Amino acid sequence: MSGNTIGKLFTLTSFGESHGVAIGGIVDGCPPGLPLCEADLQADLDRRRPGQSRHTTQRREPDQVKILSGVFEGHTTGCPIALSIENEDQRSKDYGNIKDLFRPAHADYTYQQKYGFRDYRGGGRASARETAIRVAAGGIAKKYLHQHYGVMIRGYLSQLGPIKTVNENFDWNVVNQNPFFCPDINLIPTLEEYMDNLRKEGNSIGAKITVIASGMLPGWGEPIFDRLDADIAHALMGINAVKGVEIGDGFACVEQKGTVHRDEMTPAGFLSNHAGGILGGISSGQDVIAHLALKPTSSLRLPGRTIDVHGNSAEVVTTGRHDPCVGIRATPIAEAMLALVLMDHALRHRGQNAGVRCDTPIIPASPVSLDD
Amino acid sequence: MSGNTIGKLFTLTSFGESHGVAIGGIVDGCPPGLPLCEADLQADLDRRRPGQSRHTTQRREPDQVKILSGVFEGHTTGCPIALSIENEDQRSKDYGNIKDLFRPAHADYTYQQKYGFRDYRGGGRASARETAIRVAAGGIAKKYLHQHYGVMIRGYLSQLGPIKTVNENFDWNVVNQNPFFCPDINLIPTLEEYMDNLRKEGNSIGAKITVIASGMLPGWGEPIFDRLDADIAHALMGINAVKGVEIGDGFACVEQKGTVHRDEMTPAGFLSNHAGGILGGISSGQDVIAHLALKPTSSLRLPGRTIDVHGNSAEVVTTGRHDPCVGIRATPIAEAMLALVLMDHALRHRGQNAGVRCDTPIIPASPVSLDD
Amino acid sequence: MSGNTIGKLFTLTSFGESHGVAIGGIVDGCPPGLPLCEADLQADLDRRRPGQSRHTTQRREPDQVKILSGVFEGHTTGCPIALSIENEDQRSKDYGNIKDLFRPAHADYTYQQKYGFRDYRGGGRASARETAIRVAAGGIAKKYLHQHYGVMIRGYLSQLGPIKTVNENFDWNVVNQNPFFCPDINLIPTLEEYMDNLRKEGNSIGAKITVIASGMLPGWGEPIFDRLDADIAHALMGINAVKGVEIGDGFACVEQKGTVHRDEMTPAGFLSNHAGGILGGISSGQDVIAHLALKPTSSLRLPGRTIDVHGNSAEVVTTGRHDPCVGIRATPIAEAMLALVLMDHALRHRGQNAGVRCDTPIIPASPVSLDD
Amino acid sequence: MSGNTIGKLFTLTSFGESHGVAIGGIVDGCPPGLPLCEADLQADLDRRRPGQSRHTTQRREPDQVKILSGVFEGHTTGCPIALSIENEDQRSKDYGNIKDLFRPAHADYTYQQKYGFRDYRGGGRASARETAIRVAAGGIAKKYLHQHYGVMIRGYLSQLGPIKTVNENFDWNVVNQNPFFCPDINLIPTLEEYMDNLRKEGNSIGAKITVIASGMLPGWGEPIFDRLDADIAHALMGINAVKGVEIGDGFACVEQKGTVHRDEMTPAGFLSNHAGGILGGISSGQDVIAHLALKPTSSLRLPGRTIDVHGNSAEVVTTGRHDPCVGIRATPIAEAMLALVLMDHALRHRGQNAGVRCDTPIIPASPVSLDD
Repeated sequence: MSGNTIGKLFTLTSFGESHGVAIGGIVDGCPPGLPLCEADLQADLDRRRPGQSRHTTQRREPDQVKILSGVFEGHTTGCPIALSIENEDQRSKDYGNIKDLFRPAHADYTYQQKYGFRDYRGGGRASARETAIRVAAGGIAKKYLHQHYGVMIRGYLSQLGPIKTVNENFDWNVVNQNPFFCPDINLIPTLEEYMDNLRKEGNSIGAKITVIASGMLPGWGEPIFDRLDADIAHALMGINAVKGVEIGDGFACVEQKGTVHRDEMTPAGFLSNHAGGILGGISSGQDVIAHLALKPTSSLRLPGRTIDVHGNSAEVVTTGRHDPCVGIRATPIAEAMLALVLMDHALRHRGQNAGVRCDTPIIPASPVSLDD
Repeated sequence: MSGNTIGKLFTLTSFGESHGVAIGGIVDGCPPGLPLCEADLQADLDRRRPGQSRHTTQRREPDQVKILSGVFEGHTTGCPIALSIENEDQRSKDYGNIKDLFRPAHADYTYQQKYGFRDYRGGGRASARETAIRVAAGGIAKKYLHQHYGVMIRGYLSQLGPIKTVNENFDWNVVNQNPFFCPDINLIPTLEEYMDNLRKEGNSIGAKITVIASGMLPGWGEPIFDRLDADIAHALMGINAVKGVEIGDGFACVEQKGTVHRDEMTPAGFLSNHAGGILGGISSGQDVIAHLALKPTSSLRLPGRTIDVHGNSAEVVTTGRHDPCVGIRATPIAEAMLALVLMDHALRHRGQNAGVRCDTPIIPASPVSLDD
Repeated sequence: MSGNTIGKLFTLTSFGESHGVAIGGIVDGCPPGLPLCEADLQADLDRRRPGQSRHTTQRREPDQVKILSGVFEGHTTGCPIALSIENEDQRSKDYGNIKDLFRPAHADYTYQQKYGFRDYRGGGRASARETAIRVAAGGIAKKYLHQHYGVMIRGYLSQLGPIKTVNENFDWNVVNQNPFFCPDINLIPTLEEYMDNLRKEGNSIGAKITVIASGMLPGWGEPIFDRLDADIAHALMGINAVKGVEIGDGFACVEQKGTVHRDEMTPAGFLSNHAGGILGGISSGQDVIAHLALKPTSSLRLPGRTIDVHGNSAEVVTTGRHDPCVGIRATPIAEAMLALVLMDHALRHRGQNAGVRCDTPIIPASPVSLDD
Repeated sequence: MSGNTIGKLFTLTSFGESHGVAIGGIVDGCPPGLPLCEADLQADLDRRRPGQSRHTTQRREPDQVKILSGVFEGHTTGCPIALSIENEDQRSKDYGNIKDLFRPAHADYTYQQKYGFRDYRGGGRASARETAIRVAAGGIAKKYLHQHYGVMIRGYLSQLGPIKTVNENFDWNVVNQNPFFCPDINLIPTLEEYMDNLRKEGNSIGAKITVIASGMLPGWGEPIFDRLDADIAHALMGINAVKGVEIGDGFACVEQKGTVHRDEMTPAGFLSNHAGGILGGISSGQDVIAHLALKPTSSLRLPGRTIDVHGNSAEVVTTGRHDPCVGIRATPIAEAMLALVLMDHALRHRGQNAGVRCDTPIIPASPVSLDD
């Protein structure tokens, strides 16, 4: 495949450019019988939708998803589910002035080198707009995982620039009540002030997101290469602007001793969850915990040195509509990608291990440690 | 596929258990005409081989690789190259006492839950012994990448527990002259002392590895999902004990502003390499830089709480031969995984973009920044 | 994958049901730079379109294809090309009376057993209507193959029921000038009369189609399993109603001796083409020739014994609009499937064997033997 | 992938050349818990083994398969099962005289054009010797299908040259008691005489094989492209020398009317099986029936016109050891390929449709019609 499909048994194939007719995708492999309608997918799309606060891009897209196939009488049929979202608020002329320039840190230059030319309007295929369809597709996976397995997938902003958001005020109920997906209600004013200053400055900033799957079952994941953690890393690193992925304690492991890191087990359950719910590439039944680092947006109002398509020296300034922190809207995207991976592995496990009997009882997960 | 194959056009399918007859694999998709013999692969295998210092497992394996097919008159034929390494120094009885126990933080419990039973001898399929075949296969990719594209892949230990190894003494020539793959010759005594104490304590420790591909070409990598960075994350997270992967600046991006992170461009080249050589999932021609975090080994002499296969409370102590720091031997493994991914994308790019003409000149990479 | 994607480097993922909102698909892996517009694809769609003569279904669909992505300024960008065709002339109520019945020889029963329920309107996903998108996608492959390699793909009706159409009057120019794709202009009245009688009778009939790729290059195809002939067989057997596929002489080989079958070679070229252009799974440079057998349509006005969804005995009569001979419109579909396979292998070959030097000259193909 | 792997969830990756060290393969995706030992696979290998009668090649290979991994304490573990068969009776010098020549109708020329050079010894990778590993792998699938689903896979020679073998004397018990896999004991002398004459003549002949899976379940197969029949066509056309594949009535459908072809259904079962057990790409629960046509061997003692590797005119005569009718030993190979496909689809169905409830009862298969 050519890179626009993810998954083995439950797959998403994505299409579309930022300023084209539509973005969309095909979800293949969804089992039949799942109750499904467009409203099921719209909820997460609305969480990701731009233009909802002054802290994200001012492009206004209703992001109304249409289901074109695969659903009959309100249930999935087992046939491919095509999803489409029309582009409405393109302003392609905003991009005329950077048509021949490469924004530093953007995909402009690499697309040009790979393909020889590129759709420069709004970033074309490299635009984060494409992630809307991942959110829609992830919504199908989320619903199935919850209905059939009781698995719940949630995420939050764990850091924005210098501001860490996970502390004793952590509250899941707060996460979806602010435009940052911040779990501490007291930090909202701090975040707003930071973003207001950043916007005035014309600069951008990185962020860290955490996603968690709770209610997990043990046994999902395929050693050696298609490990659950490897596939999660693939899916999360495949989100625009992501430069790092951690499972469980992640890079903190480097300085941990074995006696600190190991999650001891008792008949009453695991005593900790440093592993982030995955051992040997297979889920342990503990919460799956992953963190991702997003780089600062490359489209800046502050001028930068670059070259043009002929190789000449140039200066670039971006005036189009952009997110000064792509991390702000990344939480539903990261949830969706985690959902796609878990759904795929749930089906793969079922295909290859259905009927396998394990006499060892499943022990409970440790209490969720929010800061892993 | 069932998880034991990696790659799309250049693939490795791996087999074997720690205490079985042999480990091995099939490399498929290697172009014909590459001069290849077993000695080409043995060099990296010897770098990874156990029992070479007191700081790694004392299991003694010659790790002699045999090429069973796909090479004729000293050249690859384009047909699958089967590789086999016999297991010689098994001591399966060492594992009798943990046959019914699950080592905390090990794959013991998850394999049992997934498959219903497991080959407990030496960790079975979950043993890091399996990575020898990745090193052998990676050797083929390394050779092709170097011969055909001038791409060179190297790695080093960047941190072991609290000891960071990258500083002004960095020397590539030192890396392969010490059992730690440490780039600073002055730190060897410190590392040795640390490891000696750790071994006496019966504990283990994490580590961080850095791998770099230099001499890169722009244009490798397939957006949207099979991005070069996503596939590297998949490959590196698929190494035993890895819990985190970074490309370029990785998690440091979280606190970076756009003006700091962006790698400005001039006709004379890039001015920095925060991106780690990948933009929009496609190589920029700069050095590809990745870091990985390895957790401390789970096999410890210090007792830990666990359960047995019947779900009863138990205490476990591991007395078999193990690496107290799996990170020590991980450098050639990480290099091999990076090579496998780059090789696959080189061929995919060639398949889909051969003949594409880009009028924009390729600008040079920035000088290698060793600590990214 | 879940069965709705074909190809490895050049892929088509298909969606849609006969009476849903739309049918469509995503073509991934098309190299950048190919001039492409909707009119390029419409030509073959119009050849396949229903309602063009009294001998095919009377459903009237304009079958206007829209390109939703992947084309910019008139050229492919290397990004996925989404295609969509709206359904317009559904008459779902025609199907109310067979909603609970299984037409013998139709997919009704097997879909019900596989998925538990089914979209019964117009055959749902199993309808031959889905093949329109294959024709559109195949049009992209056809254009690329012709422009880049000079490969031309054509087909014709070689038999309809008892009427064989290949004889000394064979004329490629005639093929596209009659609704049967018959190569002998003198046979058109015979075919019309046969079909008129069949329609009055309320019965259906089988047919045989031949597809040929000329201007081939040697070296395409991947032994052992993804042979060019195996992939062609997969693609052609995957067309609705196909029950048999032959390459070259096909089943006639059973009675041939080696001296008869072998295509001798001289510096001036091959002396015959019994092999159908493929040896050892790899193209020889001769014309690729394949035949396919299509069964008679299962939707008949003549009553048949069946069961209903509760397992009770029933009688079924189909009154909806159907092709009495699905073979009549199958020629462009078969051409499209052959084009998809050749395109995929062209790119795979380029990926894995680009730069391979063969000192043996390529010898010419034998003169096309139309009935091979 | 590069063509040496078949299957999606249950895969075989094959390696090896006719005169190399060994042939072998890796079976990935076999569920854990299946009792398995080498003797299970040896039975079919012995059926395929050369040198058992004067009618097949005189190369003498014990074809002893070794299981290198994936089995522990007599049961599959869910990990990849590596299989190896050493080559023992190579006589590479026999091939010295055709080293620079291309046998007409052989893969010699196409391998040379694809790869630039080739392992000419015994046909190298293109040798039918490679099929031994398919038979071994198919043995695992056969055993699983029989144990878990009650599916039984059998085959027989249905035609050799002009001699058709299916008639009123058909007897499954006879099939495995003669070197031809002929179902009619009375025809054995006829076949022997035919083959003796052919051998004296130095010529070769084609054949037709039939394979049948009985005890099938409905619901296996993935429309649209990965149909069960399409995948069977792919697998059978992928056997060396195969030029045609039919499902059920195959090419006879061309002349059938709908009322003849359709398999009517009653609560007591299907009334016929023209479809060969597959409708809409999905199994119906009837016997799966497939036929394949094998061309005559290309290695002949009778001289033929050809070219050499420099493109010069030449005459070729083959004196090595060859099967004058590759169809004779093809029955176990075809059974194995059918088993691999069914096994893969059984697991895929289980992954995506486990838990799907169908209220329609499964009706019985029609009595087996031996000549379809």
